[in-house]
Amino acid sequence: MSIPLPSGFRFAGIASGIKASGKRDISLIVSDTPATAAGVYTQNLVVAAPVVLCRSRTPRSDVRAVIVNSGNANACTGEKGAQDALQMCSLVAEACGNDFTQEQVLVMSTGVIGRTLPMPKVQFGIQQAASALGSDESCFLNAADAILTTDAGRKISSTEIDLGGRVIRLVAMAKGAGMIGPNMATMLCCVLTDAALTSEQAHRLLQQAADMSFNNISVEGHTSTNDTMLLLANGQSGGPALSQQEEAAFLDQLTNMTIELAKQIPSDGEGATHLIEIQVTGAQSEQGARKIASTVANSNLVKTAIHGADPNWGRIVSAAGYAGVEISTAHLSLRVNGFQLFSNGEPIDFDAKAASNSIRDNRETLIELQVGAGLAKCTHWTSDLTAEYVRFNSEYTT
Amino acid sequence: MSIPLPSGFRFAGIASGIKASGKRDISLIVSDTPATAAGVYTQNLVVAAPVVLCRSRTPRSDVRAVIVNSGNANACTGEKGAQDALQMCSLVAEACGNDFTQEQVLVMSTGVIGRTLPMPKVQFGIQQAASALGSDESCFLNAADAILTTDAGRKISSTEIDLGGRVIRLVAMAKGAGMIGPNMATMLCCVLTDAALTSEQAHRLLQQAADMSFNNISVEGHTSTNDTMLLLANGQSGGPALSQQEEAAFLDQLTNMTIELAKQIPSDGEGATHLIEIQVTGAQSEQGARKIASTVANSNLVKTAIHGADPNWGRIVSAAGYAGVEISTAHLSLRVNGFQLFSNGEPIDFDAKAASNSIRDNRETLIELQVGAGLAKCTHWTSDLTAEYVRFNSEYTT
Repeated sequence: MSIPLPSGFRFAGIASGIKASGKRDISLIVSDTPATAAGVYTQNLVVAAPVVLCRSRTPRSDVRAVIVNSGNANACTGEKGAQDALQMCSLVAEACGNDFTQEQVLVMSTGVIGRTLPMPKVQFGIQQAASALGSDESCFLNAADAILTTDAGRKISSTEIDLGGRVIRLVAMAKGAGMIGPNMATMLCCVLTDAALTSEQAHRLLQQAADMSFNNISVEGHTSTNDTMLLLANGQSGGPALSQQEEAAFLDQLTNMTIELAKQIPSDGEGATHLIEIQVTGAQSEQGARKIASTVANSNLVKTAIHGADPNWGRIVSAAGYAGVEISTAHLSLRVNGFQLFSNGEPIDFDAKAASNSIRDNRETLIELQVGAGLAKCTHWTSDLTAEYVRFNSEYTT
Repeated sequence: MSIPLPSGFRFAGIASGIKASGKRDISLIVSDTPATAAGVYTQNLVVAAPVVLCRSRTPRSDVRAVIVNSGNANACTGEKGAQDALQMCSLVAEACGNDFTQEQVLVMSTGVIGRTLPMPKVQFGIQQAASALGSDESCFLNAADAILTTDAGRKISSTEIDLGGRVIRLVAMAKGAGMIGPNMATMLCCVLTDAALTSEQAHRLLQQAADMSFNNISVEGHTSTNDTMLLLANGQSGGPALSQQEEAAFLDQLTNMTIELAKQIPSDGEGATHLIEIQVTGAQSEQGARKIASTVANSNLVKTAIHGADPNWGRIVSAAGYAGVEISTAHLSLRVNGFQLFSNGEPIDFDAKAASNSIRDNRETLIELQVGAGLAKCTHWTSDLTAEYVRFNSEYTT
């Protein structure tokens, strides 16, 4: 299939040697014209240098490029790390013939924490990437591959929206497989569109989409130092900034797209054998629903039970109980893959063998948890916990 | 070694068949005279029937017996579960010749959640236990063994305090190896003393000891439905209730004893190969220090790194960053087993090989984390995360 790429963007993804594996590790995205840019970032108080830099530069209306390196997070690297992140922006401006300034560049990094960047390799890589820029699909795919770290596969998504004749396009690339917690642990995502958006629109729409997607996923709940989600809108589809009505259609598509992309992360979670969807309903507040869903999602006992195809509802119900949110045990009900396991605070008979088989035989497990008579709800996606995850993270060394 | 048992208590631990394994699963403790009793319980909102019952009965001054069953938690068992817990107390009063009433009995249960108790077996077991009561060490050890579930070994502790000639004794039994989170997930502990305490003293001293010990341990942070810590003081050592000065000496010993016992739980954590001690200092409040310590303790990335003997300080520092507590990154410093890995927000060179060896070659790992210039601190004990833990909890079925 060919990907409908938005107009006015060029891409490159090359191998600079930052990754010992020799895989692609420098990704460069350039907009031919100034683009409106917004960002959503990690809520970790220990933030990587590139996050500090991007926070200071978004939202803004004249971004020309995004530079990403994988294999090194440039996090916990002190003053040197801050200088290196800034230097990456300058190197991009230079490599692109000073067609724009370093202030018009955004930067993302992902990989091992606490090592300073090998700047000679980064400089070489940025020069290589600039000379490899192209607007075709292969260039886009190279850029999407160059941001991956422990991911099993490429994570991309695209869509077209017909606004009464005017067609706008969105495409996104993401990475993330471990250290994923609500509020986007080591997750990078860059959404590109040729729609015209004001800075205010871009920031508001990106935040709303993130709250429905990347803020509701986890692998092990470890919120990282580098999470960054960027939206660039260069207006090359023509026409003025989106009207309120057009904006609704855009948000709808942006949300579907980011949910689609977000689910790929726990599905691709390190060692994962199941993608677990947790639907919490009946909560008193959306915040409460989020807290309960993420608490259930981050219980190792729930995650190992699903891995073992064990409909161990006691672990799920008890996890909901320690989320620190008021719940109504009288209304507490649970269904797993459609099997009713617990109803209004009472255990009920169910076909344990059939329930176990449905977990074992399906890659996705659906947990429906009613926690009261409230109207607030939340859907959270996570992965199960396997011996492979432990082996992987015990051996992945600093 | 012989255990100095407090005067006036009798014990029994027998096998009633609740456990398919045929191991001891009914433990009975009787005080020959009315004892002051206090309890500290799980903070899970989904609480087991025995916890609801004990909460309603403590503190009080005339407790005569504690009945414990293992193999079934009597949790999420609805109205039937409440009746069964009450019935266990009545059966104990009967089996002991109605020498006291069912209101003077406390009850604890641990095991699988969501199954109603096999009451015929429980009734038989209580009768057997009553006829096996004895005050010698073997009876005490049987009682200590009968409360265990997935524990690798018996967990007991004892001490003597000489209050200027008057010697008082304390002995305690505990269980717990999984589903352990701050605020005492599936953990049962019963402390017995022949000291004389008022109900107010017993409750206050037990709460203080719990806050220094069982409330600072975790295995995977899953707070259970059944956690119960009881203190029975029957005054058989003679003399009046402890004076303020005697009380200080008592609390000191009680705290040391419960810390000693508490550490045995993560040390015996399912599949654990390391006991991890996390000392957080420099926090603005004790509550903040607790939050940071437990967040680091419950990070699977930290737990797997220690399992892999990887001095991956990035995972530790970043975990502190998402605890939701204000920290000063400028003061952020970290030592692991004495190796300085991070200092005042900057990475520093260290001998990674030697640091890794010190983790690999020692059963205990010490993490010292300074999070600011504050005066508050907290010590938390947890276990590492191993493939064995995952296998165990994937196969331990409902």
